[in-house]
Amino acid sequence: MPSSMGTALRVTVFGQSHSPAVGCVVEGLPAGMRVDLEALAAFVARRAPGNDPWGTPRREPDAPRIVSGLNPNGETCGAPLAAIIENTNTRSGDYGNILSVPRPGHADFAAWAKWHGAQDVPGGGHFSGRLTGPLCVAGGLALQWLEGRGVRVAAHVAELAGIEDEPLEALDNSPAANARLAGQMDALADGRRMPAIDASAGERMVEAVMSARSQRDTLGGIVECAATGVPAGTGSPMFDGIENVLARALFGIPSVKGVEFGRGFAAARLRGTQNNDPYEVRDGRCVPATNNAGGILGGITTGAPLLVRCAFKPISSVMVDQPSVDLTRMEPATLRVHGRHDTTAVIRAVPVVEAVCALGIADALLAWPADPQ
Amino acid sequence: MPSSMGTALRVTVFGQSHSPAVGCVVEGLPAGMRVDLEALAAFVARRAPGNDPWGTPRREPDAPRIVSGLNPNGETCGAPLAAIIENTNTRSGDYGNILSVPRPGHADFAAWAKWHGAQDVPGGGHFSGRLTGPLCVAGGLALQWLEGRGVRVAAHVAELAGIEDEPLEALDNSPAANARLAGQMDALADGRRMPAIDASAGERMVEAVMSARSQRDTLGGIVECAATGVPAGTGSPMFDGIENVLARALFGIPSVKGVEFGRGFAAARLRGTQNNDPYEVRDGRCVPATNNAGGILGGITTGAPLLVRCAFKPISSVMVDQPSVDLTRMEPATLRVHGRHDTTAVIRAVPVVEAVCALGIADALLAWPADPQ
Amino acid sequence: MPSSMGTALRVTVFGQSHSPAVGCVVEGLPAGMRVDLEALAAFVARRAPGNDPWGTPRREPDAPRIVSGLNPNGETCGAPLAAIIENTNTRSGDYGNILSVPRPGHADFAAWAKWHGAQDVPGGGHFSGRLTGPLCVAGGLALQWLEGRGVRVAAHVAELAGIEDEPLEALDNSPAANARLAGQMDALADGRRMPAIDASAGERMVEAVMSARSQRDTLGGIVECAATGVPAGTGSPMFDGIENVLARALFGIPSVKGVEFGRGFAAARLRGTQNNDPYEVRDGRCVPATNNAGGILGGITTGAPLLVRCAFKPISSVMVDQPSVDLTRMEPATLRVHGRHDTTAVIRAVPVVEAVCALGIADALLAWPADPQ
Amino acid sequence: MPSSMGTALRVTVFGQSHSPAVGCVVEGLPAGMRVDLEALAAFVARRAPGNDPWGTPRREPDAPRIVSGLNPNGETCGAPLAAIIENTNTRSGDYGNILSVPRPGHADFAAWAKWHGAQDVPGGGHFSGRLTGPLCVAGGLALQWLEGRGVRVAAHVAELAGIEDEPLEALDNSPAANARLAGQMDALADGRRMPAIDASAGERMVEAVMSARSQRDTLGGIVECAATGVPAGTGSPMFDGIENVLARALFGIPSVKGVEFGRGFAAARLRGTQNNDPYEVRDGRCVPATNNAGGILGGITTGAPLLVRCAFKPISSVMVDQPSVDLTRMEPATLRVHGRHDTTAVIRAVPVVEAVCALGIADALLAWPADPQ
Repeated sequence: MPSSMGTALRVTVFGQSHSPAVGCVVEGLPAGMRVDLEALAAFVARRAPGNDPWGTPRREPDAPRIVSGLNPNGETCGAPLAAIIENTNTRSGDYGNILSVPRPGHADFAAWAKWHGAQDVPGGGHFSGRLTGPLCVAGGLALQWLEGRGVRVAAHVAELAGIEDEPLEALDNSPAANARLAGQMDALADGRRMPAIDASAGERMVEAVMSARSQRDTLGGIVECAATGVPAGTGSPMFDGIENVLARALFGIPSVKGVEFGRGFAAARLRGTQNNDPYEVRDGRCVPATNNAGGILGGITTGAPLLVRCAFKPISSVMVDQPSVDLTRMEPATLRVHGRHDTTAVIRAVPVVEAVCALGIADALLAWPADPQ
Repeated sequence: MPSSMGTALRVTVFGQSHSPAVGCVVEGLPAGMRVDLEALAAFVARRAPGNDPWGTPRREPDAPRIVSGLNPNGETCGAPLAAIIENTNTRSGDYGNILSVPRPGHADFAAWAKWHGAQDVPGGGHFSGRLTGPLCVAGGLALQWLEGRGVRVAAHVAELAGIEDEPLEALDNSPAANARLAGQMDALADGRRMPAIDASAGERMVEAVMSARSQRDTLGGIVECAATGVPAGTGSPMFDGIENVLARALFGIPSVKGVEFGRGFAAARLRGTQNNDPYEVRDGRCVPATNNAGGILGGITTGAPLLVRCAFKPISSVMVDQPSVDLTRMEPATLRVHGRHDTTAVIRAVPVVEAVCALGIADALLAWPADPQ
Repeated sequence: MPSSMGTALRVTVFGQSHSPAVGCVVEGLPAGMRVDLEALAAFVARRAPGNDPWGTPRREPDAPRIVSGLNPNGETCGAPLAAIIENTNTRSGDYGNILSVPRPGHADFAAWAKWHGAQDVPGGGHFSGRLTGPLCVAGGLALQWLEGRGVRVAAHVAELAGIEDEPLEALDNSPAANARLAGQMDALADGRRMPAIDASAGERMVEAVMSARSQRDTLGGIVECAATGVPAGTGSPMFDGIENVLARALFGIPSVKGVEFGRGFAAARLRGTQNNDPYEVRDGRCVPATNNAGGILGGITTGAPLLVRCAFKPISSVMVDQPSVDLTRMEPATLRVHGRHDTTAVIRAVPVVEAVCALGIADALLAWPADPQ
Repeated sequence: MPSSMGTALRVTVFGQSHSPAVGCVVEGLPAGMRVDLEALAAFVARRAPGNDPWGTPRREPDAPRIVSGLNPNGETCGAPLAAIIENTNTRSGDYGNILSVPRPGHADFAAWAKWHGAQDVPGGGHFSGRLTGPLCVAGGLALQWLEGRGVRVAAHVAELAGIEDEPLEALDNSPAANARLAGQMDALADGRRMPAIDASAGERMVEAVMSARSQRDTLGGIVECAATGVPAGTGSPMFDGIENVLARALFGIPSVKGVEFGRGFAAARLRGTQNNDPYEVRDGRCVPATNNAGGILGGITTGAPLLVRCAFKPISSVMVDQPSVDLTRMEPATLRVHGRHDTTAVIRAVPVVEAVCALGIADALLAWPADPQ
């Protein structure tokens, strides 16, 4: 179903921007996992709006209430875990003529064409970025399970307004590169406001955001995510490989228009002798020496870090007049989006990408692990 | 399941490079469709090896035998359609030490890690490009069904060895651009050996391939695919949108490492005012004037052409010595790949991308059409 | 996933007997359906406990709160509909030693074996009859959609303590039988306390229940359900036929141990000449004259009424000492169940069977309708 | 999809009675299992027609050709296993007017209503009992895997023409009953022509079949199946429990109209004190002393034998005139079925029920095992 994903670990997301609540149901979490509710709330808070000068002033506590799936000891009990986030701070009045005039770049028109006017329009309905809240709840639970298995996931803003952050050290698989990657992951976990590895790049990104905001315009960017500790042999051939599962999931985040693994599009310009990752023996095990493949061959992990990059288009809600159409009269109309909006999706999207990658990786570990020997 | 995909139109692909046969089962084809077996064979032949100086000399007739799913009139009958392609021309001897020494860039090592040595090694087993044959059978059937609905799908080699073809005219949605795109699609349908729009670019690509081949090296590239005639309102929010479905499917083609829609990664550097597609009234209907979105917003079609690009890494089978590991002794080993191999995947991949896109689009039209009004 | 079902109309049920809430997410409801919340509450109330002398004294308002899936006009909007029922009246103290001593006939021991003690024990956890509340919410929505398509669903207690109700007139398909069946459905819709067609049989059933209750024992029984108005050609061959879908769903209701369609087990003693339903022309259409098949052949509807019967075992919570095992000490133990329990499941199960049948039929109509002509 | 089933072990069945071939694809067989092709052929041969005086004279070698999924050592390799059975002995001429006149009791009319005449009519098309051949191939593979896990599956004709066989000793779970059940399973494995435990009951069944055959009539019956060795804690709550999975699968066998587990419908007439299975300690483990539940509570196994019974309606192809309708003229018509047909399905269905149960149980063990401790 459209709002569900996963084979052995399945998440179903519900809610609309202005419905009474948003939430998720997570099926397949292994029983007996103690859930750290504080850590979960802290993770979810990373995507919450209202914390930063460049974001929407809408303040959402986003505190998830878990209404099922735990036993009296606070452990997962094998039954579906449901979490609810109440929508307390909705202001439908702001959305004026978008009820009949679709906002360029938003899903308004596509949803109208699909549901012939029955779609829930205010705030983007089910297409709203608000739905990434429950995704983070589900992903935060997956992260806790992964942590117990030695898997670590971290993302950063790799590019914003043309400004590039230091890349994650994941295209190499040498011990030195692995150590540098671990250091980058540590650094990103320190709670910095702008999730960039290079603080000075981060500052320039903030400036670019403030500048675009002052021009009533918006920005796109790239989020890069790495995962370490996923054992070799996880995943599947063909259509349920790690790349397939993650790509399907990542394109479910609003504004994502491109996904690449390892060298990705850059590999298209390489030769085989440049792009192949040779194998070597390390600690008695076979490992790829380099990691142009981003840790995945034939859909299955090689044991090297997973590396994925997602392109986000600029947020659609620009504050200038845009040509559109009044769908009730089928006449040209000019639209000016009001309301409270972010200038860029990529900053708040960083934990969302981590959440979605965690869900996909946990699902692969549960559904498509290496066969027992 | 890993080797299956689709919600309402489901394809299951089976076979290994050197198994007795490869094939597919297609479930969900609407009943009563007359299958043009000749057109199907012609489509499948476009990816068959052995036709060109740059390809593997392995000749595979690839003639599919349909063993179920048709009624005596040659129409689909509602039951699963199964097609078999016999493997007549296999030469296991060529694969020598790859049984214990994984080829860099191939899935050999990942499969060994997953199945602990039980995987079928010769020729790449289930990971072989040979499996794109049955995919083309299934996709060729989907293309016939789409044609009856006014949907057209065409791909080309957009880039090879850094040489770019003329892009498909699909980022604009003006009547003039639509007409130019139709002309490009006509041109690509003329059976040209090198599927490039610009014949001179195509010639330079061939030269680059021959040059890399003489250096025992291989090349990556980019395949671009457009589809027209998909009605607005097709698809779904979140995880079963057109992008999700196509991305999951396209990453199932061997060597694909990146997928982007519309402006894709380039959109990450644009501002909202540049990237938003305004709406206008045309023939009494609302249409996007431009098409930076590649025809998809919120996972749902806008009525503008679909546009997707796939990055292919260079083929892994380079003909030079490569460092690897003997997995039975867990010792370093040097590998030289023998056998018959293509120099690049992107040329033969063009019909495969068309096939996979056709399968995804047909599935979306059947599973997630606009609601009936 | 275990707690989800459906292909095009998917319901996911969450909650435990004593978790903060129970609820469901319904995906795939066609957009634009106005939901009658009052009718929904009335339907759900039919299964609510505490209304009758023979039931548990636990009073649950069971008023579902719909938190997503509706647009401001109260119509389905295409997004998942989520409904929450708060658990306000839980008394964990009643469940004493069942935490370590499994109740015979309950799922306690099986759940302990599966989840090694992490399962949520009090009140039966996710296995509780309480979870049929959200099922009725989902099924009540399906019933409203079906009503708009001319489909009617009605069930009754066909047998309880050996006392048989008048059977539904659905094994015949004559116009007279169809009229009598419609009359039976009207009668059952009048809100009678005991859902039996024959009031005197119903009275005797009540007496039998009160008698068993006074003996601290419990009773099983049979619920029979018919559906009219499902067009011929709905459903699928093999594993997604109407029988497959309904059987899978009905065995999800606690205590169901048998499911049969049409003549069911009795057909095993008939000859072909007795059991075949001949065809005749009626109003210019081909119809089966009789309906031993229960409206389904090859998994696909014939246009005659659907008829299904479900056997419910007696409720496990008898109020007498039973031999069991203390799982923490792995020693024999005697268990006496306390708490508030029904004497039989079949009375409250009547709307649950209607709900589950409605979900299955609506799913079949959406996922496996007759092909468009 | 209708012709597929399974979560972790998925079988897709293709073919029609008179299509070039029938077959199956099995996905999810654990890698490294050596397939005993001879044992597989012997199992499949048990359902093959033409061996007995009461059966259809159609002789089908039914030798499956495995075309993928094995490595050069004859072991499963992790890729989908596909098997083909060629249809060599088809005689379409026998089916005369059934092309326009549906046979009472067959799926002809329902299929016509669904596919508007595009269905494959001869021999029943995809609804033919012929499709149970590939099911037996898939189930035979599952049986080999289960055998390696200590799971045993055996079925018999429990009732035919009102004649009852000795029941399987599975409603008790005492060591003595377990031993008797093992003995019954041994006896049924001896290759007897009539799969009944009590040879004299078997002889009377044969006589009843020959008698009905001489009267051009057909018979229904009941097949009972038990499985031992399934560890406690296998399965799932709600909709993916053992009962749900098996019921969905068993209703996919042509002619099945009822399915019950343990006491089944008889439990509806018992009291809780009679039907509950008390627990006791045996060999340091908790086990149910009796087995009225048929080894399943809350969808999850208790460790006691699984017990399921399936009601088969009489075969529809009676050799006498039957009223029907000519669908092309929509006029009454008289139909006499010609061709070669069985007198009862239940004898040949015995290995089919074993196959389907094996597939369901293997799937549950792979998809829904007890959580790792």
